[in-house]
Amino acid sequence: MSLPADTPDSEHRTGVWLIGARGSVATTVVTGCAATASGLHPPTGLVTETPPFAGSGLPALSSLVFGGHDTANGPLPKRAEELAGAGVLPHDLPSAVRDELRAADAEIRPGVRPGDDTRGEPELVAALSADIEDFVRRHRLARAVVVNVASTEPAPAATDPRLPASSLYAAAALRAGCGYVNFTPSTGLHHPGLADTAAASGVPYAGRDGKTGQTLLRAVLAPMFAQRALAVRAWSGTNLLGGGDGAALADPGAAAAKNAGKDRVLHDNLGSVPQGEVHIDDVPALGDWKTAWDHVAFEGFLGTRMVLQTIWQGCDSALAAPLVLDLVRLVARAHEVGLTGPRPELGFYFKDPDGGPSALAEQYGALLDFAGRLGDDRPAGNDTEEAR
Amino acid sequence: MSLPADTPDSEHRTGVWLIGARGSVATTVVTGCAATASGLHPPTGLVTETPPFAGSGLPALSSLVFGGHDTANGPLPKRAEELAGAGVLPHDLPSAVRDELRAADAEIRPGVRPGDDTRGEPELVAALSADIEDFVRRHRLARAVVVNVASTEPAPAATDPRLPASSLYAAAALRAGCGYVNFTPSTGLHHPGLADTAAASGVPYAGRDGKTGQTLLRAVLAPMFAQRALAVRAWSGTNLLGGGDGAALADPGAAAAKNAGKDRVLHDNLGSVPQGEVHIDDVPALGDWKTAWDHVAFEGFLGTRMVLQTIWQGCDSALAAPLVLDLVRLVARAHEVGLTGPRPELGFYFKDPDGGPSALAEQYGALLDFAGRLGDDRPAGNDTEEAR
Amino acid sequence: MSLPADTPDSEHRTGVWLIGARGSVATTVVTGCAATASGLHPPTGLVTETPPFAGSGLPALSSLVFGGHDTANGPLPKRAEELAGAGVLPHDLPSAVRDELRAADAEIRPGVRPGDDTRGEPELVAALSADIEDFVRRHRLARAVVVNVASTEPAPAATDPRLPASSLYAAAALRAGCGYVNFTPSTGLHHPGLADTAAASGVPYAGRDGKTGQTLLRAVLAPMFAQRALAVRAWSGTNLLGGGDGAALADPGAAAAKNAGKDRVLHDNLGSVPQGEVHIDDVPALGDWKTAWDHVAFEGFLGTRMVLQTIWQGCDSALAAPLVLDLVRLVARAHEVGLTGPRPELGFYFKDPDGGPSALAEQYGALLDFAGRLGDDRPAGNDTEEAR
Amino acid sequence: MSLPADTPDSEHRTGVWLIGARGSVATTVVTGCAATASGLHPPTGLVTETPPFAGSGLPALSSLVFGGHDTANGPLPKRAEELAGAGVLPHDLPSAVRDELRAADAEIRPGVRPGDDTRGEPELVAALSADIEDFVRRHRLARAVVVNVASTEPAPAATDPRLPASSLYAAAALRAGCGYVNFTPSTGLHHPGLADTAAASGVPYAGRDGKTGQTLLRAVLAPMFAQRALAVRAWSGTNLLGGGDGAALADPGAAAAKNAGKDRVLHDNLGSVPQGEVHIDDVPALGDWKTAWDHVAFEGFLGTRMVLQTIWQGCDSALAAPLVLDLVRLVARAHEVGLTGPRPELGFYFKDPDGGPSALAEQYGALLDFAGRLGDDRPAGNDTEEAR
Repeated sequence: MSLPADTPDSEHRTGVWLIGARGSVATTVVTGCAATASGLHPPTGLVTETPPFAGSGLPALSSLVFGGHDTANGPLPKRAEELAGAGVLPHDLPSAVRDELRAADAEIRPGVRPGDDTRGEPELVAALSADIEDFVRRHRLARAVVVNVASTEPAPAATDPRLPASSLYAAAALRAGCGYVNFTPSTGLHHPGLADTAAASGVPYAGRDGKTGQTLLRAVLAPMFAQRALAVRAWSGTNLLGGGDGAALADPGAAAAKNAGKDRVLHDNLGSVPQGEVHIDDVPALGDWKTAWDHVAFEGFLGTRMVLQTIWQGCDSALAAPLVLDLVRLVARAHEVGLTGPRPELGFYFKDPDGGPSALAEQYGALLDFAGRLGDDRPAGNDTEEAR
Repeated sequence: MSLPADTPDSEHRTGVWLIGARGSVATTVVTGCAATASGLHPPTGLVTETPPFAGSGLPALSSLVFGGHDTANGPLPKRAEELAGAGVLPHDLPSAVRDELRAADAEIRPGVRPGDDTRGEPELVAALSADIEDFVRRHRLARAVVVNVASTEPAPAATDPRLPASSLYAAAALRAGCGYVNFTPSTGLHHPGLADTAAASGVPYAGRDGKTGQTLLRAVLAPMFAQRALAVRAWSGTNLLGGGDGAALADPGAAAAKNAGKDRVLHDNLGSVPQGEVHIDDVPALGDWKTAWDHVAFEGFLGTRMVLQTIWQGCDSALAAPLVLDLVRLVARAHEVGLTGPRPELGFYFKDPDGGPSALAEQYGALLDFAGRLGDDRPAGNDTEEAR
Repeated sequence: MSLPADTPDSEHRTGVWLIGARGSVATTVVTGCAATASGLHPPTGLVTETPPFAGSGLPALSSLVFGGHDTANGPLPKRAEELAGAGVLPHDLPSAVRDELRAADAEIRPGVRPGDDTRGEPELVAALSADIEDFVRRHRLARAVVVNVASTEPAPAATDPRLPASSLYAAAALRAGCGYVNFTPSTGLHHPGLADTAAASGVPYAGRDGKTGQTLLRAVLAPMFAQRALAVRAWSGTNLLGGGDGAALADPGAAAAKNAGKDRVLHDNLGSVPQGEVHIDDVPALGDWKTAWDHVAFEGFLGTRMVLQTIWQGCDSALAAPLVLDLVRLVARAHEVGLTGPRPELGFYFKDPDGGPSALAEQYGALLDFAGRLGDDRPAGNDTEEAR
Repeated sequence: MSLPADTPDSEHRTGVWLIGARGSVATTVVTGCAATASGLHPPTGLVTETPPFAGSGLPALSSLVFGGHDTANGPLPKRAEELAGAGVLPHDLPSAVRDELRAADAEIRPGVRPGDDTRGEPELVAALSADIEDFVRRHRLARAVVVNVASTEPAPAATDPRLPASSLYAAAALRAGCGYVNFTPSTGLHHPGLADTAAASGVPYAGRDGKTGQTLLRAVLAPMFAQRALAVRAWSGTNLLGGGDGAALADPGAAAAKNAGKDRVLHDNLGSVPQGEVHIDDVPALGDWKTAWDHVAFEGFLGTRMVLQTIWQGCDSALAAPLVLDLVRLVARAHEVGLTGPRPELGFYFKDPDGGPSALAEQYGALLDFAGRLGDDRPAGNDTEEAR
């Protein structure tokens, strides 16, 4: 990564444009890519580094070049030090990869706040797109993938015709001809005003809302209950989140966006949504760590009442970052081989995917099939319809 | 069930011969079959009553006739009342199905205690087999399946040439020409002295050790960690069991047998066995209820340490009984269509199956394939080799 | 209990007037008192049956006579059968104590719904009081204690001058000269409009909101953190409740009332309220059972972050009923020996007590002291001020 | 701490002699004392820094001078770096207190391995004692306290007349005229061969086995069940420990020593030991962190079965270290004011204390009383008998 732009292999380098480029997830993505590419750490959590993906033609980790938008300031090396102080990153890692952090930091451009900006939507999209195109041009990148890892924004009112910030960034990605990944529950491309643009874009995209904890578990446990013909009566859960996402999701609108994805997993796997609520609490004392408690009340033979409880204690950034790298590599390669439009084969990564199966095991199967297709020499073109 | 032996449809009736016929699982099997067949309760927990099995030609629940061996006394209706008093069965159900309980009770024959018996092994097997054959003959059954649901016996010493009780019963099943299911971790057919007999038997069989709680969870969670490239460092667990099984498994030998199955699930799904132990505690105060706590220490991206914990609180008999009925129906139908030998397609049900995949989702897929094959009109014969 | 009114020892009998007399708690109170008084069950959960209370002069369980108000219909024996069907009561107990259930049922009078009633508050209070006085007179009771065990009502708006139903019942208790216990978080005597009446009433009273689960645990765990100088950073919790209380507390107003008590326990024991929220979810599938999960994030030496989690799975009625009987006996005896006004010595039983210490161990100490004072032959009069 | 020995206030300095001085607990004690004394960290977890102890005349943290015995090598600053790398200590703290770590490191003398040593017990004790006396003399300390924080040793066979290592160190402490604290379950002073020496020693001592996790919780929860008259039927638990203690306690003998203390807490608070086992598993992947799961099956009113579960996730060294500092200060001050023999007032800190109450709240009360007595100007002498 971050090779000088004039190296001979520049055509093989891939850009990663992060929306929310100074956040914890983005900082972990840049730090971890450097650490893994250089062999400082094994590729734990990177699905695309496992054997089934060896022949898929994915861009190498060392070929990724990072940039992005953010409305916040604060240099990336400093953000990495803060994460190390909080135990999210190994404490000597930020200094070991300081060059790569600085290089990415130099490619971060100011983000937009639509409400505070006097420019109209087209101007905003054009300005954001120009930042991305400039990044691609200066680094002579083969292509770039835009990834939304910004804090979750409140769900927009149904009657509001304005595009929320996440949709402006998504539109800019399309305009710049980049693949797009929405790792958050924010609107992104899921806005009626972008439907035509997306359909005509000629780029692959995937979303939304990365599946990193409670919903990941639900995607393996709900199928188990269904397969065993056990009747789930109530599925209740509480998420305790510190960090930026906890505060963002304390907004009831943002929580609603996130919970829609959670409910969908249960509905699609169980055939109906059982009783029970999901709470998302902002607990700043937890820092970047999150805890999810789930309580599943189910009935077995002859109506006997039983209970499964799960407690998931993870570090949000460490869970998200490798999936972001996976998605970047897969979408970049899909772009390279000519696949366009929504990629249901990537449902393995999302709470609220663009179609495809809903049980994790089947989603994994679909992902492996996709890995195989990506490895074929010259795909005959876009076969999205078949794949769905 | 338990129709008079001379009804016209006698050829369509299937015998269920339970080893441990007065135990909690067997009592729940008989009670629950009657309750479900008569429509008193929905078929919750019965996988074979779900749509994918509708065309498999399985024997109807109402066509099952029960009998069995047990070394204990105590009439089945009374056992059912005790289970109702303990909350394992709905409290008015034993009286509602008293006729069926009495009919099964009349078909229970005394079991054997090899150590206390002066007869040699061949005589013991012949006597047990004669009981089963007599049952089949008197009821004019199309066939019968023998199921071991007795308390777990200690693992026999490697140097002991004598067959343990579970193996005597298994040998009797083969001799009587019956399909055989070992729902416990006891030896059963897995004894070197029975290998040749089993190979020549011409009946289908399946085992061993029903997957009803902690291992069921492990069979869905371990694949999740593998698919996400997360590194499981330690998987620790504690099982609290009341009832007969708790006491039986307090014996270190019996616990060792059970734990071998648990370890196998982790090994086969993760590629290696992580750190951590499994404890099985006898806690009589829990009655027929069991609690399993699991603690999974895993590493994510950049070595970040995270934890998943699960707590499963279930009723052992209610979890096991529908699986026993499923297995009886599947093995009976396999027998009918001419399939013989070990059935790896039934790994969905077992901790320590006879081959086949190790992740629950794949085991479920194999089971559905099997359901399809059972529904074909005239199977071309035994294709065990292919199936494996 | 429920002796004919003309027996010689009528002067020693004590009335128990239950607001919400057909609810699960009240039904369990009546059933359990009969079962325990007659020796069918040991007095598990009854603190007043332990040795320290032997000399306190409390009314015997067999001397309690039950009646009450309820807006619902449905005979008490039938309610008890329903609870037995749900596993809340032993399934043969309702028939064993049917006479006592019938006797109590005959003494239940229709409750009031202030919003639907054309009578003014004074008339309503007078009518309710007349019901209680009539009960006392007909049974020639020495005295009676009125206990609110009705579903939690929404917290009234601060600007609403009208008395909520719980306060009307409380006023009726005072007017009838009865001791009063508020086992719920509803307003009861805690209404500014009742302050003068309460002060002048000459009866003892206690409240509010019985401490039966999560808050009970908090009252022992919070002191532990304080005593060990550990810094609690966040205390989060979720309660899953079925039954009537779950539905009542799904109302945000009612939940707010309940949570105020929970927060108070933390504040009084820790010196401040840590981060974290408390959720109360209505989960009808749980029936009368409740589950409370608590997550305590605390810091130890040098800021090391640690976590305690607790999971409490209990039956609400079985937890509440013995405490109601304890409180009735203690308040009746306090009344007998001339103690009046709020009784801070009973803080052991309440989330939001009328003064006294906040740690459970100290509350227990205060209760034992009180038990000693109740046993003194002729207390010199009301010494409430001293006791506080 | 670690002032030059010739400073004017040398008479006010107190020695802390740590057995196991290079272990995680000892390293955290030295690091944390320096960090707290210098104001780098608040005194979280130090009970003796709370207001009730302000007037007790305890030695200041800044007046403590560290030394000790250890059979291991490895400089203390390096050990602290390792702990920081594992997240046990703040990662910049070891360098901030390097001087203090070096000073303590210079005072660590080789420990003994009785089985590998040709010297007799008296010679070994004399040699160890000489190390301590030399330390006190060179630093002109007012006095010193010896604390055992070494790995747990297997319980000695009842028939073995030899003193285990922990008892040799304890004997050396007495011989050197030092107060003694046994923070581990090892034998220490609890050896019949040391009874007379201890009785005649004229020094205060306390033990054994610091109460830092599961047993701490049990000491607050068991009294709750007793006070509420709830019937505990089974109390089961599993401890997962990494670090040195996990490996040491994997030895069944060592685990037996530890579990005796745990059982004692239940017995003394509940009146009998309920069903259930306690497991201690060595899980190296957890490092210095430990997890304790407890499952309490209890019965409430009318025999209703309920369950409490607790999960305690803590850092062993961070939990133990402040208690060690507390004990050193309390025992040093007791020594100063002339108190001798076992100190039951310190039961707050131990699983298996030398008498005193068994509920944590009462133990805390006894500790506060003790703090008051220590603050009296000139105690009239040793009143141990009264105190018990």
